[in-house]
Amino acid sequence: MTTAKRDTYTPETLLSVAVQVFNERGYDGTSMEHLSRAAGISKSSIYHHVSGKEELLRRAVSRALDGLFGILDEEHARAGRAADRLEHVVRRMVEVLIAELPYVTLLLRVRGNTETERWALERRRDFDHRVAELLKAAAADGDIRGDVEVRLATRLVFGMINSVVEWYRPDTRGASGREVADAVVRLVFSGLRQD
Amino acid sequence: MTTAKRDTYTPETLLSVAVQVFNERGYDGTSMEHLSRAAGISKSSIYHHVSGKEELLRRAVSRALDGLFGILDEEHARAGRAADRLEHVVRRMVEVLIAELPYVTLLLRVRGNTETERWALERRRDFDHRVAELLKAAAADGDIRGDVEVRLATRLVFGMINSVVEWYRPDTRGASGREVADAVVRLVFSGLRQD
Repeated sequence: MTTAKRDTYTPETLLSVAVQVFNERGYDGTSMEHLSRAAGISKSSIYHHVSGKEELLRRAVSRALDGLFGILDEEHARAGRAADRLEHVVRRMVEVLIAELPYVTLLLRVRGNTETERWALERRRDFDHRVAELLKAAAADGDIRGDVEVRLATRLVFGMINSVVEWYRPDTRGASGREVADAVVRLVFSGLRQD
Repeated sequence: MTTAKRDTYTPETLLSVAVQVFNERGYDGTSMEHLSRAAGISKSSIYHHVSGKEELLRRAVSRALDGLFGILDEEHARAGRAADRLEHVVRRMVEVLIAELPYVTLLLRVRGNTETERWALERRRDFDHRVAELLKAAAADGDIRGDVEVRLATRLVFGMINSVVEWYRPDTRGASGREVADAVVRLVFSGLRQD
């Protein structure tokens, strides 16, 4: 009697394996064969769940984008002074980035070779634009310094926040997600210099 | 009579072509064939100049590393209060990064699959460590805030600085290298908030 290995994958767990492989090999460098080997199930079992690797990419980056756009709908992102809303958004971006680390990592590495990748880049630009608008509003209120151009400041602030995916690992003994979020908020708003 | 195309490459110009190809394809994804096609000369002509692609990588990342380590030998990096020395180093890092953009971009993307890559990673860690020491000294002087752990602050500051390679292009109408360096120094030391 042969024991048939039961396919216990759900779309959710398959997605988690796929994102790990995409992040290791790069999306372009990943084949269905790689996914099948990493998941330990046949290619046809994968096709039972999804239409192909591009659907897995779309689901993965959607999860990251939904997390980020969700921030903009939170109460503290919608009401109050622009500078306070911006501070809330910056803190929550770090928290979402750490909570959804592999998904946001993948989103930040997307190039633009397929329709899904171009769509993801477009959505990222939309998000960046929304945050830049908040920064501009805070500058107009006089709460944010006026001697750094808004687009440049947005790019640098995003640079600091996004760099977290390069080194943050949930199992390190180092800083917790909360500490990283606190540190980013402090540095972005008040800088290094002791008052 | 056939006209033999004369090999007008110098080690310097060949390096510049190689770095461009490495940045586009990734070092691992680049073959001598790719380099030969991009340079428009035969593989044997390339071997006339260098022993192989790893030597080109070593020369390229050495150029970036020499630029960065050179900063630490500058007078303003060696004398004065630690916080002022740190400010000088941060400003000059942005300037070197922009002056040597393709070389620093390559350095920041190095993985660790070959001996040269591991050596480059080691040298990068040395440099990061030297800057972290400066930050620690400035905190001990009471000039830098004490509520963000030094290693975390170093990583976030490097994150902001290094992110410049992702979007800065010398031909953009946007900010000049000087403006970017000014903006980074302002944000790193004083933050976004209007005093």
